[in-house]
Amino acid sequence: MNGNVIVGQSGGPTSVINSSLVGVFQGAKRAGCGKIYGMRNGLEGLLQERYVELNDCIKNDLDIEILKRTPSSFLGTCRYKLPHYEKDSAVYEKLFAILKKLDIKHFFYIGGNDSMDTIKKLAEYASKINSDITFMGVPKTIDNDLDKTDHTPGYGSAAKYVASAMKEIILDTDTYTTDSITIVEIMGRNAGWLTASAALARTEDCTGPDLIYLPETPFSYDKFVSDILEVKKHKSSAIIALSEGIRNADGQYICETQKGDMKLDVFGHKMLGETALFLSDMVGKDTGMKSRGIVFSTLQRCASHIVSRRDITEAYDAGATAVAAALAGETGKMVIFKRISNDPYKVFTETHDIGDIANVEKTVPKEWITQNGTYVSQEFIDYARPLIIGELTPFMVDGLPRHLTIE
Amino acid sequence: MNGNVIVGQSGGPTSVINSSLVGVFQGAKRAGCGKIYGMRNGLEGLLQERYVELNDCIKNDLDIEILKRTPSSFLGTCRYKLPHYEKDSAVYEKLFAILKKLDIKHFFYIGGNDSMDTIKKLAEYASKINSDITFMGVPKTIDNDLDKTDHTPGYGSAAKYVASAMKEIILDTDTYTTDSITIVEIMGRNAGWLTASAALARTEDCTGPDLIYLPETPFSYDKFVSDILEVKKHKSSAIIALSEGIRNADGQYICETQKGDMKLDVFGHKMLGETALFLSDMVGKDTGMKSRGIVFSTLQRCASHIVSRRDITEAYDAGATAVAAALAGETGKMVIFKRISNDPYKVFTETHDIGDIANVEKTVPKEWITQNGTYVSQEFIDYARPLIIGELTPFMVDGLPRHLTIE
Repeated sequence: MNGNVIVGQSGGPTSVINSSLVGVFQGAKRAGCGKIYGMRNGLEGLLQERYVELNDCIKNDLDIEILKRTPSSFLGTCRYKLPHYEKDSAVYEKLFAILKKLDIKHFFYIGGNDSMDTIKKLAEYASKINSDITFMGVPKTIDNDLDKTDHTPGYGSAAKYVASAMKEIILDTDTYTTDSITIVEIMGRNAGWLTASAALARTEDCTGPDLIYLPETPFSYDKFVSDILEVKKHKSSAIIALSEGIRNADGQYICETQKGDMKLDVFGHKMLGETALFLSDMVGKDTGMKSRGIVFSTLQRCASHIVSRRDITEAYDAGATAVAAALAGETGKMVIFKRISNDPYKVFTETHDIGDIANVEKTVPKEWITQNGTYVSQEFIDYARPLIIGELTPFMVDGLPRHLTIE
Repeated sequence: MNGNVIVGQSGGPTSVINSSLVGVFQGAKRAGCGKIYGMRNGLEGLLQERYVELNDCIKNDLDIEILKRTPSSFLGTCRYKLPHYEKDSAVYEKLFAILKKLDIKHFFYIGGNDSMDTIKKLAEYASKINSDITFMGVPKTIDNDLDKTDHTPGYGSAAKYVASAMKEIILDTDTYTTDSITIVEIMGRNAGWLTASAALARTEDCTGPDLIYLPETPFSYDKFVSDILEVKKHKSSAIIALSEGIRNADGQYICETQKGDMKLDVFGHKMLGETALFLSDMVGKDTGMKSRGIVFSTLQRCASHIVSRRDITEAYDAGATAVAAALAGETGKMVIFKRISNDPYKVFTETHDIGDIANVEKTVPKEWITQNGTYVSQEFIDYARPLIIGELTPFMVDGLPRHLTIE
């Protein structure tokens, strides 16, 4: 029999992070692992000895299917910054004592950039103290900003939501003849992958957004206004998608120019938001046109009622691949996707040393952004389109999607 | 052969207004009407002689099915205020000349309160000049605020979206252990029907919002804060649904207290918005807790990717019933729904004199709002639940819902 296993979820929720959890759970079960524990609220909860046995929470095959369709982190999440063990070894000693008490052999953490930093530190510490516990990262982020992997689970579903909602917003806007400016704000601090996915709305039946602004390109308000006026020469409505993380040439967040001193989260990241509303107010006044700001907010990362089936499947694979790799003795690694071809879409999974991934943010390549900095290229579309393909219908009960929760 | 027909769409879009259009189109076609015209952008477009022949735009049965799944107004909409004929008869003369030129016998207008006022005036004028053109209203509004009808097409789908999104937002919020306040702003100027539908999220697998504020109850900021602190005694997150139209005891919109002088639309209505963000900022500062405002904005009225099948069907019926009534000689009326029972859900359609409906806003009954003004009763749930039942899956092409548009 293989040993006991523990799995946690960390960072911002996605629509498919629970599919990765199911991948770990079923992978471990099928491999004959012992107990399969789930950390409540990631490492933060584990340090308080808050955990569950997944067999108690996921009781049957119907639960499995509902859990795949449940957005956000089933086990709860945290934004916990693990200190370096040279600065604070006490927390490591406490954690490894808990792992020992539970007789854990394999540790899995589903998360984004910051979570991969956690896995890296834990694997390093384990090596230092000669622990044989393996530590594996399972990628998850709607931001798609993890390096060394073609893409990350969670991105495809968020992109499908963004592109679908854009199509609906464009229909809603274009139904009026009034001159109008609509500015839609999409998540993405430093990487514009999700904002770029708004371009997928440009289809046979939809013009798509007219302008797209990513954090990769410095943002100038004056150019923004002139870009809009250019669009308005041949169209009554201007539809704009922009990232919450757009910054001016000095590197200052546009929302910061409004808010003054910004709050920081525990990782020291500035807390962004409402750039669209700020710009909508300003551009409305400056052009005299009707303007509206729409902020997708958390809706874009938890809209499991319109997930990408491919994303759900790949999220599951990422979890299952992590288990197989751990059982083969790998540690300090993350599961990555390698793409063989766009059309037909073919990928495979492998693992990669987490040291190359933690704390690196992969941004949209310059050559995928059009020269005037207001759109993305066909290369981006060819890359992103396959990730939003296929649907997984929610289980509807009394008119609403049913979810699985811990009692 | 029955005569020529014209149909228009007016006011804010919904997810099912095109299903009513299909109801009128197929009803008229099956009844052997002559040409079936569609006004581009409602009355405003018609006065500029902008119209289409629907047979040219809806080419086959597949188009019919796609159109039912297309949100917003296929024909385009307007917010046009028709003056009274005693004040400005020229516009009536122009309009009736256009109708005569097209040899129109039956005129259908799909819309809400303001659109029904238009139908009322047109029917009165027709009677005055002894025109035999019939004028029928087809109800449509996510606000559900039309009188004399049990409910309005468009409401059920918007309510399904609101309740589904609330469930997802609650999962997203509760996944953190952090103390937090989430304020979700829902459309509804004077009637809280749509905001109340957030209560439908309270199900076996979801606690639902903790507090719901409707425009029917005067809003006090101090009570709001103490309501939240009461919730926080037994829960780390407080989830609040509130209407964009909440007002203080003096009748002043809460968003107005922030914005100062508000802009008016063509009907003289104040343009609301962003109450949730304003309150979120304020309550965050006053309580020291993390707070987030989410504004559903236009997403709630155009999310045809998660419609209520019952709503789609009833919207179609409303259109078809209007045609049958017009052909039977009725004029100056609106189609209404009468409910026989909640469970099993049974309704029938009939018509009602539009004079009783135009310019009346039906609000949520006082007895359906809980005594402390922070929730709705079981009677409301029993009323609203049947309206969100059933799904109509979008036709997905390349990963996105396909829509029908006029070329």
